[in-house]
Amino acid sequence: MKIQKYKHDLDVSYALGATLTYELLKCAPELATRVFINSQTKRDGGIEKILEDCEVKGIPVEVSDKAFNILSPKGNCFVIAEFEKAETRLKKGDHIVLVNPSDAGNMGTILRTATGFGLLDVAVIRPAVDAYDPRTVRASLGASFHTRIEYFDSIEDYVARFPENRRYAFMLTASSPLPEVGKTRPFSLIFGNEATGLPESYAELCESVIINHSNDIDSLNLPTAAGIAIYEFTKDRWNDR
Amino acid sequence: MKIQKYKHDLDVSYALGATLTYELLKCAPELATRVFINSQTKRDGGIEKILEDCEVKGIPVEVSDKAFNILSPKGNCFVIAEFEKAETRLKKGDHIVLVNPSDAGNMGTILRTATGFGLLDVAVIRPAVDAYDPRTVRASLGASFHTRIEYFDSIEDYVARFPENRRYAFMLTASSPLPEVGKTRPFSLIFGNEATGLPESYAELCESVIINHSNDIDSLNLPTAAGIAIYEFTKDRWNDR
Repeated sequence: MKIQKYKHDLDVSYALGATLTYELLKCAPELATRVFINSQTKRDGGIEKILEDCEVKGIPVEVSDKAFNILSPKGNCFVIAEFEKAETRLKKGDHIVLVNPSDAGNMGTILRTATGFGLLDVAVIRPAVDAYDPRTVRASLGASFHTRIEYFDSIEDYVARFPENRRYAFMLTASSPLPEVGKTRPFSLIFGNEATGLPESYAELCESVIINHSNDIDSLNLPTAAGIAIYEFTKDRWNDR
Repeated sequence: MKIQKYKHDLDVSYALGATLTYELLKCAPELATRVFINSQTKRDGGIEKILEDCEVKGIPVEVSDKAFNILSPKGNCFVIAEFEKAETRLKKGDHIVLVNPSDAGNMGTILRTATGFGLLDVAVIRPAVDAYDPRTVRASLGASFHTRIEYFDSIEDYVARFPENRRYAFMLTASSPLPEVGKTRPFSLIFGNEATGLPESYAELCESVIINHSNDIDSLNLPTAAGIAIYEFTKDRWNDR
């Protein structure tokens, strides 16, 4: 089968490196179609574990230097997994909603935080960066494979599917400060685009929330703001144990 | 005067783009040595404001396409400010301490968050990435110019200078969860390297603190963890108003 540089319209994507391959095989082995190693790959413990896992789970392993030339031209990775991009449907419950995110690294970082705090359902409102982009997967450190990610054409489509969720929209023009806001479940934590934030219309559709900060900065970095919000909404689960 | 691609041992660094140049001229004009524009630079409102500011503050403006070829070869910026790298001494009070940070982008993102929550003194323990690297400055979105940053050869040197600070070390092996920890001021919030975290020895020297999360991830992204910690330690200042 042909190996192609990743593009949005391919049916497969790639997990570059041992850590991501390991997470894929652990969390979503049914999606893995092939694993590539190359002639430089050292058979250390981590690689052996991956190869054994592939054998047990019936995932073909191909030795291919060409795959690495195409998929990782900088030559800093020694195992690559190819996987199917499978649309997943969100479950009912607490959600993250990313509206028009434009940076793959930021999306991956947010998936990592969301997974860490137990929020495994992420809605993405188009237009948006590709959740299967190898850069998203890499920045997530494999959290992508724990998460259900579903794309919607509009926030209205999302709301129609999950009308029962209490919606919290993070906006610089909001008046309810994060620490004081009620944390009613199930909730949807809604974050806008890196440069433009959320349109004012979200204030009608949601309770708008602000993370107060000084005027020395225009805004927090998006993954940082999302991290703070997710932490504040979930911390009781992780600390009342 | 010669224009050189940025290196750690240069006495000057560069703020690439109008936003960063504007922040430099606003917060630290005494450091600005030159401003470059090129033959493609459109004289819009933002650029006119920068040029006026330079005239008022006596900062030379040079039209130089060569500067852009050297400093911004991708050609996506139309104004560059050169500035002196001036060591600053920390003030007494609350501090961030970054131990061996290795990624310029991460450091910049943390400076942005720290500035946003009013923590303007950042200690950095060597070996560490360069706080004046244009990539740090860019990721900080100019927060670099609001912050006092001082490098130390060891944590002991830092502690000897600021023995009065209560030290909180963020570690995955800690037992005090962030929400429950006392927030005694003045405090030092101490974060380790991206890959290795803080050495165990910090648990002797500090109160060790954990941001609890699930086992689905190994750790939070460093700027996200720092953002959550800074938020939790400062939120009363920003919300009791």
